[in-house]
Amino acid sequence: MSNIKPSLAKGTRDFSPQEMVKRNYIFDTIKKVFKKYGYAEIQTPAMENLSTLTGKYGDEGDKLIFKILNSGDYLSKANAAHLSALNSNALISSISEKALRYDLTVPFARYVVMHQNDISLPFKRFQIQPVWRADRPQKGRYREFFQCDVDVVGSESLLNEAEFVLIYQEALCNLGMTDFTIKINNRKILSGIAEIIGKPELIIDMTVAIDKLDKIGFEGVTKELLERGFTEDDITRLKPVILLEGTNAEKLNRLKEVLAGSEIGLKGIAEIETVFAYVQGLLKNSDLKQPDLELDITLARGLNYYTGCIFEVKTNEAAMGSICGGGRYDDLTGMFGLKGLTGVGISFGADRIYDVLQELNLFPESAAAGTKVLISNFDAESELYALPLLQQLRDAGIAAELYPSAAKLKKQMSYADAKSIPYVILIGSDELQSGILTFKNMHTGEQQKITAAAIVELLQTEISAG
Amino acid sequence: MSNIKPSLAKGTRDFSPQEMVKRNYIFDTIKKVFKKYGYAEIQTPAMENLSTLTGKYGDEGDKLIFKILNSGDYLSKANAAHLSALNSNALISSISEKALRYDLTVPFARYVVMHQNDISLPFKRFQIQPVWRADRPQKGRYREFFQCDVDVVGSESLLNEAEFVLIYQEALCNLGMTDFTIKINNRKILSGIAEIIGKPELIIDMTVAIDKLDKIGFEGVTKELLERGFTEDDITRLKPVILLEGTNAEKLNRLKEVLAGSEIGLKGIAEIETVFAYVQGLLKNSDLKQPDLELDITLARGLNYYTGCIFEVKTNEAAMGSICGGGRYDDLTGMFGLKGLTGVGISFGADRIYDVLQELNLFPESAAAGTKVLISNFDAESELYALPLLQQLRDAGIAAELYPSAAKLKKQMSYADAKSIPYVILIGSDELQSGILTFKNMHTGEQQKITAAAIVELLQTEISAG
Repeated sequence: MSNIKPSLAKGTRDFSPQEMVKRNYIFDTIKKVFKKYGYAEIQTPAMENLSTLTGKYGDEGDKLIFKILNSGDYLSKANAAHLSALNSNALISSISEKALRYDLTVPFARYVVMHQNDISLPFKRFQIQPVWRADRPQKGRYREFFQCDVDVVGSESLLNEAEFVLIYQEALCNLGMTDFTIKINNRKILSGIAEIIGKPELIIDMTVAIDKLDKIGFEGVTKELLERGFTEDDITRLKPVILLEGTNAEKLNRLKEVLAGSEIGLKGIAEIETVFAYVQGLLKNSDLKQPDLELDITLARGLNYYTGCIFEVKTNEAAMGSICGGGRYDDLTGMFGLKGLTGVGISFGADRIYDVLQELNLFPESAAAGTKVLISNFDAESELYALPLLQQLRDAGIAAELYPSAAKLKKQMSYADAKSIPYVILIGSDELQSGILTFKNMHTGEQQKITAAAIVELLQTEISAG
Repeated sequence: MSNIKPSLAKGTRDFSPQEMVKRNYIFDTIKKVFKKYGYAEIQTPAMENLSTLTGKYGDEGDKLIFKILNSGDYLSKANAAHLSALNSNALISSISEKALRYDLTVPFARYVVMHQNDISLPFKRFQIQPVWRADRPQKGRYREFFQCDVDVVGSESLLNEAEFVLIYQEALCNLGMTDFTIKINNRKILSGIAEIIGKPELIIDMTVAIDKLDKIGFEGVTKELLERGFTEDDITRLKPVILLEGTNAEKLNRLKEVLAGSEIGLKGIAEIETVFAYVQGLLKNSDLKQPDLELDITLARGLNYYTGCIFEVKTNEAAMGSICGGGRYDDLTGMFGLKGLTGVGISFGADRIYDVLQELNLFPESAAAGTKVLISNFDAESELYALPLLQQLRDAGIAAELYPSAAKLKKQMSYADAKSIPYVILIGSDELQSGILTFKNMHTGEQQKITAAAIVELLQTEISAG
């Protein structure tokens, strides 16, 4: 056995009990909302056939997929030519058949195709699992991280888009966030703009440039557009669109004028208006706070992929990039031979949301709830006395521990402190004789003398009060 | 993009929404019990440094670890001699630095050593995560499966063992199992027996043989013991121990006579008696059903590893091997240079428990609970009418969906059936005029005409009734 100091694999993390409670709080809060909107959970395996993943993420993506070495005498089947040429890349397919999933989208597409006879469309699923990427680790970027995706396939209805706006709104409000903007755009509006200025083939260049408006300003965008093949004249016509301001209604009216001659552009506007109408219809009698929903035509997230609405959520309370994204795609499963299945989905950036909640101190106290009460252990007699009480506490649904040895009281108190256990029961010789126990509040330091039954009742009341 | 029919990697599984709900039911039930006994969750990464895992599971185990191929030009650092000799096994360490975890025990040991300054002992943790083994897949054996481990390190107290008996009891009872046996043994008793017959060095051979009593009977055990170096005389002295019968008290009394001359054997007996006493102390005033706890000295599970008590749980309701195991080990972290840390832990076989609950039809109806009510969609007018109702249902905590298009009613009903949605709200032109909706129970087929408010109230009552 090796005896070296162990370490974590680069770019990976352990999650401590304290971190797990907070992470579970985020996932549980989000899941509860997903379920209320009719989404059901699936899981796919960590390992996929390498052929399932290869070619789905571009050449750069392919390099970042973690490949699993075949078991046994893998070199016996290795391609001899690639081996002798020391061609690492070409050799892979002959020594590795499996790989770790790189995202949840491709495994979901595989799932839908493989189970197409078992699922009924529209298929509404969510999936919260780790993914792995051989990226260079840096602050906030890990080689193992969780994705939290929710998608519906097989429904063209824009009701789905509207419901995703409410899912964002409800989930983030439930997490305690109060100031965030849900940005929406539509690929068809961008296509319309490119069409109107007579450069439909430059739509990607156009959106890449105007996506940077926040960072480099209009002057910077102008420079980049010129470099990317647009003329001064094009830019003059683009300017009012790029610098679009006002309410959503004002923006939409302005866009209708600009895009009057573009069928696809007008379709994009109509889609956005339908989504807005659905959102208002849903919220007519609802308790849910009105979302800060903003049409932002500079939003171009994942443009190669999305075909309709595009979403992004930014918090305005913390310095943080986008915390959620998503959009509509026309062909999820075409890569596996099942054509024409449209879908729309969004994802929550759990690690970023974690950092925001931490920074804003939004994790509730209950998200630190572990053991509620520790019974201290003085000697064999007090231990024997404590046993039935310990189990009665648990029978009442109260997380309870008896310190497992008669260690020094100071050590037992440190243990309670380290685990953030809010109450300690002391059973000394006085207590054994009187049957009245000492009940200590670890936050306030306050001690009271009460019966075991009173302690059970008190803690039960506190727990049911949340 | 490849266009081949996708498949799962061999030995791996997808989990459908129906399976996920059942799996989560099992994990949630077990977790709730773990927490009540003061255990907190941790997670470790799927990928560990290969050096962390190698040498911990024996030569056979090392072969079954899935290795991850280094990224980039991995052949540039490959050992040239091993490469030209086509020595697959020797080459691994120069082309693979990382591997998938093989169990939760070694990562837990690494965790404890790495975080020793942050955790307070005794450290009580549980961990429910997948592990990967390059085993040949067969019925019930997968290459990716979940382990569900709960351990405490840094406490010698046998209270921990007693609490594990209650954790078994409470978790399995809460899952609806009514007839299962918690078997307990102690490595020290086995050592004592081997010592008494003068063959301490043959303890492993002895236990391997008597472990088979169930399957091959006493005659078979005798034959095997003779083959393994025991004499007829040894077997005569072993016989009363192997065929030990009666109550736990009767067995312990008989063992005390037999092991009177073995210090370690008597220590093992004393440990079992202490565990029994703790269990009775805990259950003195408890609502928990008395466990069927049986001393079984033929139980030898993981003997190379365990040093004190050994546990195994068998269901008596279904043809299934053991569904849980566990025991005390004296040196968890020695492999990483931190000596003398004792621990005890148990694990739940989630896949087997799933099969038992399925066979006995023990999954509760609520474990199938997804969407509670579907609002059917007749036309644009009924859809508009439905929107605020849909959101009101969700505001009331009711999982609800509006069918996203005005498809044929038959299709909408099939959708509700396929998702096991128990109620459907029908909003036709009559309903739009009267404001009285048709509320259909999909189990009974019964329809009633009631207001939207009455539907919300009815479903809310049903949900809060559980």
